Amino acid sequence: MSQTPSRRRPQIPSPGTDAPSSGGAPSEYVPTERTVPTRSAERAAYDRETVHAILDEGYVCHLGFVRDGAPVVLPTLYGRVGDRLYLHGSTGSRPLRAAGQPDPGLAVCVTVTHVDGLVLAKSAFHHSINYRSVVVHGTAHQVTDPEEKTAALDALVDHVLPGRSADSRPGNTKELAATAVIRLDLREVSAKIRTGGPNDEPEDLALPHWAGVLPVAPVYGTPIPADSQGPAIPEPAYLTAR
Amino acid sequence: MSQTPSRRRPQIPSPGTDAPSSGGAPSEYVPTERTVPTRSAERAAYDRETVHAILDEGYVCHLGFVRDGAPVVLPTLYGRVGDRLYLHGSTGSRPLRAAGQPDPGLAVCVTVTHVDGLVLAKSAFHHSINYRSVVVHGTAHQVTDPEEKTAALDALVDHVLPGRSADSRPGNTKELAATAVIRLDLREVSAKIRTGGPNDEPEDLALPHWAGVLPVAPVYGTPIPADSQGPAIPEPAYLTAR
Repeated sequence: MSQTPSRRRPQIPSPGTDAPSSGGAPSEYVPTERTVPTRSAERAAYDRETVHAILDEGYVCHLGFVRDGAPVVLPTLYGRVGDRLYLHGSTGSRPLRAAGQPDPGLAVCVTVTHVDGLVLAKSAFHHSINYRSVVVHGTAHQVTDPEEKTAALDALVDHVLPGRSADSRPGNTKELAATAVIRLDLREVSAKIRTGGPNDEPEDLALPHWAGVLPVAPVYGTPIPADSQGPAIPEPAYLTAR
Repeated sequence: MSQTPSRRRPQIPSPGTDAPSSGGAPSEYVPTERTVPTRSAERAAYDRETVHAILDEGYVCHLGFVRDGAPVVLPTLYGRVGDRLYLHGSTGSRPLRAAGQPDPGLAVCVTVTHVDGLVLAKSAFHHSINYRSVVVHGTAHQVTDPEEKTAALDALVDHVLPGRSADSRPGNTKELAATAVIRLDLREVSAKIRTGGPNDEPEDLALPHWAGVLPVAPVYGTPIPADSQGPAIPEPAYLTAR
């Protein structure tokens, strides 16, 4: 999302090189041909800490898959457990059905983006935005093990609002059956980050246009109790913390 | 992004039925097989006013395309001009190259999502989020006509910050050549919207868990002038308006 030419390019391992598993705590995801950007490669990051922090700050991803040869991108809730993402949906939804049994899995791309600021430059060309994004490529599979499914749904709820899963009625057998969860291992993963002010051309600096950054962030408002709330229930601490 | 079963389903026209053009002011995009959701169809909307309002409120979309048979989803800046989206990138970026000459175009799916609130239900199952999203299916083409390209880039800048394109140095020939713009006509388009509180089961309403909505919205902070700002330039009104 900018015009800055690439300055350096990470080494791409030969095809077939495997990304590390979560065991043994390797600190970086191994770049692959499709996780090294064609441009602005200096903005790419592969370390787990950075990737996980970006993933943990959000809860809506954009799930991409191919249907009848054409791309489909749908907003979807997710949660992270270690080196695995869980994505949420109904058993009737198209991507989740496609990821079902028989289980070759579904090729997906999951992208999470946080916008941090509008970058205003003296020139139209150097306008940009500050952002942090993570792109995950891989094969998603339906979660069928009941224990993993329950844990995944708890993780999904807690990812949106930490502590909430313990403060709600757990899903019953019928609800669990009606909910589909797919998992996607974090193996082929990259983050991309732009920070800082505009990169104006030196000859433009004297132009009379305001240049700088307008920060932006999601802000939570005052909780609105449900009409059906019944007896007054105090706002839980995890809500106020948001 | 919820569990509510479908209540009604829009009529799907027979294949080959064409979506209306922007001339003659038809008020609705014609639903197609892939713009009618498999679930929560009561949340779908096709009227231009709703779709355009959602598109105009954002400036980052998630652009999906297929590369080597696999889906790719990238955050991308966009602007809208009438019934057309313009997407921005570098001439070196993969999707823009793929959408270039010779020009069969590139099958894309462009999705814009606004999160409006976290919906907390008594049961884990009925947790949801309030959101407004637009999904556009179609074929993207590179913009090559210099006049259309210039207008598209102005629209992109003004989409992020209305009024800004007139208050920055326009792109020169070299910059225009280094920027690729793709266009995507709004023909196969749908919006999906969830609003309101949780849809709890009647038998759960007495449970002691807080239920309701935690609103969320992007909020703009105090503008940060660039270090290279030079002489003090007052904040423009379009910036303060954000």
